Amino acid sequence: MMPADIVQQLDPIFKAKSVAFIGASKTPGKWGYRAIERAINSGYRGRMYPVNPGGGEILGLKAYPDVLDIPRDVDLAVFTLPAEHMPAVMRSCVQKGIKGGVVITADFAETGDHGRQIQDEIVRIARKGGMRFIGPNGMGIWTSAVWLNFALEPAPKPGPLAFVSQSGTFGGSLAHIANIKGYGLSKFVSIGNQADLKIPDLLEYLAEDPDTKVIVLYVEGVMEGRRFLEVARRVVQRKPILVYKGGASPEGARATLSHTASIAGSNAVFDAMCRQAGILKAREVEHLFVMAEALISQPLPRSNRIAVIGSGGQGVVTVDALSNLGMRVPALDDDARRRIKEVLPPHAPVPGNPVDFAGGARTALQEARVAEQLAQLDYIDGIITNVPTTFSLARTVGAAARVGIEGAELLASIPEKYGKPILTQRFRAHGEDLIINILQGAGIPYYTTPEESALAMFALVRYGQIRSALEDTVGVLDD
Amino acid sequence: MMPADIVQQLDPIFKAKSVAFIGASKTPGKWGYRAIERAINSGYRGRMYPVNPGGGEILGLKAYPDVLDIPRDVDLAVFTLPAEHMPAVMRSCVQKGIKGGVVITADFAETGDHGRQIQDEIVRIARKGGMRFIGPNGMGIWTSAVWLNFALEPAPKPGPLAFVSQSGTFGGSLAHIANIKGYGLSKFVSIGNQADLKIPDLLEYLAEDPDTKVIVLYVEGVMEGRRFLEVARRVVQRKPILVYKGGASPEGARATLSHTASIAGSNAVFDAMCRQAGILKAREVEHLFVMAEALISQPLPRSNRIAVIGSGGQGVVTVDALSNLGMRVPALDDDARRRIKEVLPPHAPVPGNPVDFAGGARTALQEARVAEQLAQLDYIDGIITNVPTTFSLARTVGAAARVGIEGAELLASIPEKYGKPILTQRFRAHGEDLIINILQGAGIPYYTTPEESALAMFALVRYGQIRSALEDTVGVLDD
Repeated sequence: MMPADIVQQLDPIFKAKSVAFIGASKTPGKWGYRAIERAINSGYRGRMYPVNPGGGEILGLKAYPDVLDIPRDVDLAVFTLPAEHMPAVMRSCVQKGIKGGVVITADFAETGDHGRQIQDEIVRIARKGGMRFIGPNGMGIWTSAVWLNFALEPAPKPGPLAFVSQSGTFGGSLAHIANIKGYGLSKFVSIGNQADLKIPDLLEYLAEDPDTKVIVLYVEGVMEGRRFLEVARRVVQRKPILVYKGGASPEGARATLSHTASIAGSNAVFDAMCRQAGILKAREVEHLFVMAEALISQPLPRSNRIAVIGSGGQGVVTVDALSNLGMRVPALDDDARRRIKEVLPPHAPVPGNPVDFAGGARTALQEARVAEQLAQLDYIDGIITNVPTTFSLARTVGAAARVGIEGAELLASIPEKYGKPILTQRFRAHGEDLIINILQGAGIPYYTTPEESALAMFALVRYGQIRSALEDTVGVLDD
Repeated sequence: MMPADIVQQLDPIFKAKSVAFIGASKTPGKWGYRAIERAINSGYRGRMYPVNPGGGEILGLKAYPDVLDIPRDVDLAVFTLPAEHMPAVMRSCVQKGIKGGVVITADFAETGDHGRQIQDEIVRIARKGGMRFIGPNGMGIWTSAVWLNFALEPAPKPGPLAFVSQSGTFGGSLAHIANIKGYGLSKFVSIGNQADLKIPDLLEYLAEDPDTKVIVLYVEGVMEGRRFLEVARRVVQRKPILVYKGGASPEGARATLSHTASIAGSNAVFDAMCRQAGILKAREVEHLFVMAEALISQPLPRSNRIAVIGSGGQGVVTVDALSNLGMRVPALDDDARRRIKEVLPPHAPVPGNPVDFAGGARTALQEARVAEQLAQLDYIDGIITNVPTTFSLARTVGAAARVGIEGAELLASIPEKYGKPILTQRFRAHGEDLIINILQGAGIPYYTTPEESALAMFALVRYGQIRSALEDTVGVLDD
């Protein structure tokens, strides 16, 4: 499919100027009520048309007995009514000229043959009528393009991360956690049974989406494997794709069967597919967001040679974690050691890699200056540093806080200036909000454990490798 | 050494009725001030004697020019004065009859030959005078036995976890994070250079300590490897030992050299040592606390057959994580499925393992009843369940909240009643505080990711295996 086609086909869903709620309900707590409530709460400014045989008013909006009664054009229909009624209303929607659908209703293919028949029928109706739809058996979507949300509670913050999930409730939980941690979402899509639109369609659309920088997937089984591979290969040339696969173990695979009517398939095949496509796989589900945060904001390193700034055990553990992921932590040359020593307090030990400040005697500004020295070394490709956490900063405003701000600003300037990523790590949880706000505002990721920052650096290095390999060749990549 | 000896020797440190602060300072921020400030803030009720040549008053306490001027007995001396002065004051302390020491001062063996000579000298003085000490080059200790803290800011909550760290600052950060997450500490010991007291001594003491249920170690290199192995083998028969080893990678090992003057040693040797001793190794540093929380409160499972309660993706990912750790997730027999089905709402799917509630239609009480059914099965050894998070609970008090409380209470009664561990997992972060408080009060651990709860269950299973193996034999255990 040409990119222009998919954009044209999916824009009625993700940039809907008007929405009909098919199966709207006056009963709080019901899906037919909740979908409208969430759309209002997310700040959607388009036109909203509840459709309910009883008419009247729902959440202050005029309700129409039939979708054909709606006086103006409708881009998107959201379906929350029982499966048996779906074919008839889908026909009306097509007749009305609606081009986008989100089917939240369950009891389709995931429940057996009867459900599958209804599902096949609504696909035929939509295909014939030129409608594309997401679902059924999903939790809906969020799209920051028009601030429209049916899926998440509370509504997420907008941001550059698109999250497509094959599990609705779990995907919603992940999206919620992501939001608490400060990751904004451009899209959330609970894809459900993928009766019509499938993951490859969404990948094609998200590749073109200017609001999306990184694509995150939770999948349990892949439909149209060959197309998934082909599309993903194209997309990762422009944006990273991160995936977590549920049901990777035999016992987990058994559990997915009853869940999304998808066969998990061989994990080895899926792994090979990801390698060939240049998709980054997450070993734990939260790692998706750890890796995404770095990929959103940081330049890609040329290679895997990392410098670490961190005292004592924190430096040691960061180096261990990097090393476990195949990163290198080169020793510094004498000239570099001398220049870094000049920045440090007199009693600091001779700097190595990690650069050890020897306990608390450091300031944010010294730390940032050390980072800048490291960024200038041609054998260092990226830097991990502790967010400076001097006690003085935690306790005072004034001079110490100013040094902290200056340090954070200097640190935040380095990635662009030297084309090398900087990741920070805040281990203590008090007294750093000021600096973290500055870092976050400047797009410098911060993490709470050495393992997380090492993993994020690994993702940058790996995606850098994937990008250069894809530029050079179409060969299979090694892990 | 006989247990009685080590208790007698270390009680002056960990149950000190009086403390002399050698090198006390009137300058806020200095170690000689901070140690006293922290002791006061932690609620220490023993006698405190600042020692400073200038005399006068420090933080409202009368300061003595010399330790020999203190009119009453002193159990513990805390040293914060420069290394060169240490031998002389150590002699005075021994003369005073002080039996315990904590040397926070740095610039000993970790800085080279001169420092090592001073370190050796103070060890000789202490040995001769019958004093045992922790350090030098450490951050001090916390002991809940007498609410005495020099090391941590803020002071930790008391609890059953003893944490011994070879890295001071990092150990302090870990202890702080542990506290934020609600893990209380019986002891925190920053062991520094281990000039006199070494990890095996502390293990022997902690084995006897009634306040300690689980022992957590951050080590970079092990001194007295053979004794460590022998002591650890004895201790794990009574209490679990969890360890994270910094410097496991070659580059990390290089970093430890300048840090704690310890040679990291071969990781393979250390691994073998842990296996032989029955010590649980953590792959990531925060996993120490994840595993400890379960070991503190839960009965040990007889084997590795786990049941999971969790909808959709959350159940799937939990099963994957368990499977990756070698746990089994047995299918349920027909009779069990029927009995569980009776507890569930009518439209719930036929229960498998994981037991899937199909979306939001569940209550805390239903979940707890399912857990109890599972606990009665002779082929299930432990249970992981989601903390119930119905929206109704988040939004209302009254009936729904009552059902939640009943459910939590029932859940919390299961481990003791059936001798099987229950771990919970709370993925959403709102609306569950009430139930979580009840669970926590009843000693039911909760985790924030499926991977964490699976790892905690693994730790219980593994420690159960270690305990039974140690009861049977002294042979080497397999991983």
